[in-house]
Amino acid sequence: MNQLTDIDRTLSAPELPEGLDTPVVVVDLERVDANIARMQSHLDERGVALRPHAKTHKSPFFAKRQRAAGAVGITVAVLGEAEVMADAGIEDVFVAYPVWAVGEKARRLQDLAGRCRFAVGADSVEGVQQLGRAVAGSSARPDVLIEVDSGEGRTGTDAARVVEVARAVDDAGLLLRGVFTHGGHAYRGPDRVAGAAEDEGSTLAAALRALLDAGFEVPVVSAGSTPTAVASAADPVTEERPGTYVFGDRQQANLGGSDPAMLALAVAATVVSTAVPGRCVLDAGAKALAKDRPDWLAGHGVVPQLPGAVIRAVYDHHAVVDLADDTPRPHVGDVVAVVPNHACPVVNLTDELLLTRAGEVVDRLPVLARGRNR
Amino acid sequence: MNQLTDIDRTLSAPELPEGLDTPVVVVDLERVDANIARMQSHLDERGVALRPHAKTHKSPFFAKRQRAAGAVGITVAVLGEAEVMADAGIEDVFVAYPVWAVGEKARRLQDLAGRCRFAVGADSVEGVQQLGRAVAGSSARPDVLIEVDSGEGRTGTDAARVVEVARAVDDAGLLLRGVFTHGGHAYRGPDRVAGAAEDEGSTLAAALRALLDAGFEVPVVSAGSTPTAVASAADPVTEERPGTYVFGDRQQANLGGSDPAMLALAVAATVVSTAVPGRCVLDAGAKALAKDRPDWLAGHGVVPQLPGAVIRAVYDHHAVVDLADDTPRPHVGDVVAVVPNHACPVVNLTDELLLTRAGEVVDRLPVLARGRNR
Repeated sequence: MNQLTDIDRTLSAPELPEGLDTPVVVVDLERVDANIARMQSHLDERGVALRPHAKTHKSPFFAKRQRAAGAVGITVAVLGEAEVMADAGIEDVFVAYPVWAVGEKARRLQDLAGRCRFAVGADSVEGVQQLGRAVAGSSARPDVLIEVDSGEGRTGTDAARVVEVARAVDDAGLLLRGVFTHGGHAYRGPDRVAGAAEDEGSTLAAALRALLDAGFEVPVVSAGSTPTAVASAADPVTEERPGTYVFGDRQQANLGGSDPAMLALAVAATVVSTAVPGRCVLDAGAKALAKDRPDWLAGHGVVPQLPGAVIRAVYDHHAVVDLADDTPRPHVGDVVAVVPNHACPVVNLTDELLLTRAGEVVDRLPVLARGRNR
Repeated sequence: MNQLTDIDRTLSAPELPEGLDTPVVVVDLERVDANIARMQSHLDERGVALRPHAKTHKSPFFAKRQRAAGAVGITVAVLGEAEVMADAGIEDVFVAYPVWAVGEKARRLQDLAGRCRFAVGADSVEGVQQLGRAVAGSSARPDVLIEVDSGEGRTGTDAARVVEVARAVDDAGLLLRGVFTHGGHAYRGPDRVAGAAEDEGSTLAAALRALLDAGFEVPVVSAGSTPTAVASAADPVTEERPGTYVFGDRQQANLGGSDPAMLALAVAATVVSTAVPGRCVLDAGAKALAKDRPDWLAGHGVVPQLPGAVIRAVYDHHAVVDLADDTPRPHVGDVVAVVPNHACPVVNLTDELLLTRAGEVVDRLPVLARGRNR
């Protein structure tokens, strides 16, 4: 696999300001706002609530923009992100993760439940029992959403066992808020997205039916991922949890989750070497771009200014670019914008984002939840 | 590729303290000191200087231990790491990277050259000329080492052009300290290490001959990478720049660069789900383990406590482990040590390391150069 896709060739990176000290992550606010508005309006039309996943931006700054546009609350992956969001005044947070609540995590979970509308995921009786022990003796209790596996094969119980987990929620004195799934198998390729969205719907429907039959109330039925949130029209979903849509990236554009013309995040990099014929080397390596690469995409990012070029390899501090025969030859010192394969790890690698509008720097934003990964 | 190697099955992770809040990076100091002593004594026996690459640990704490054991100075990849090392009193720093010295980088380079024994890499006439412009008017000047490509195909000029670059160093009023290479093609597989070490030697010999013939003095002839530093006995090398040996990792153990019984770094992780049959999920995902995986290794790390198991996939916050038929079944809540494929990006992802001796916590070390990647 060493070919760019047709969509790769249409990707548009944010315009770069002059005189950047590279590598640096640039985020175009106009494109961010367009992406937020587009997903909100898509889900408004479907009559589905939007609870964006904040692991993409790790920043209350963007979470507040999503809330202002209509999001009902925020999704996070870890307690550390939840704390950063709650500290910044985000009042409704769901940790979509089967947190094992012992020690420090038990203390932090209890604290979070006391200061915002708070829910946490679970996919096992043991996990729920541990949640119960973690908050025993406290009046502040997290709500629980039970995770079901819709085909990704990662976390999540199945419809046959969901009632058993729900009974454990009751027994632990916690409130069942609903069920959730993540159709992550959508990321296995553009031809998998529609099926994954359908799988989310059918799996959630089966879990919902089992819970209703057993007499449980299930106010929230939550699905999520950027490509399936765009593709899906599935009942009985009441809420979607896409994350990457806020910035977009190369993978999302190829999966139909992002508008290729509206990618809001790029890594600005300098050409530091052209010593090896047919190649150039950029100063944005794996410590800036990460190494995420689905097996259906060639290389580690796209450089729209170098048409036809492929980032063949990334090392800690080098990206090695294979130039096509008709790629304009770059010069040492040129600054280019790299569209990364996956935006989420890029943001987690940098302490700050350079916010721009139309190629002008408007601010430097610290990534407040960077590294808060437990 | 879904098989563990014979060496994978012998990997030993540091003993974990009780009650860890996961994911967390644990570093065993006794093993670190053993690894530092082993490489130092190996190079002492060869009569070659050791200038360890600090991009692995990003911490003056470990750089000082390496210096105390006999290292002549420190190698770094970026000015940000150089600044952290110089701030901590490391007095001899080489940036083994073709820095394009404009703007902020020009100012920082001049500052560094004024406060420690400082050298920087270059592989082009243009890069050297820019170094000259960057420090024009200053009395503090960096020395220059010219990079040559020994077969990796990344950065580095060739023996035919090295004299031209050396003349540019003279013309810029800078001092040529020597030549360097990185036989990174050693990482293409265990069968490539010996050849890469030979390539380093022969390429450096050709560059040295060309420079001496042209009348240059070349005090330093520097090679480097952990596996080639272990494998090489090559003339005319005067200095080696291995980095990863300080901790070791799964890749190094398989390449012969690390003792499988002396791996000093592991990521402690909790089993958060066993909902999918034949699998378990750990809370150390790509934001803790990174996604480095050479194509000759199966999966994203090894879990010695789960013999035969393979980390089939890592997502931002999940590692999905395929259990072998005879792997002891883990339980939700179990804490295990993951030996990562590559230690360097793991350290760059965490704000602190948990330092241990024989399974007891002795300190928490902030990773001072974490994220200092430009």
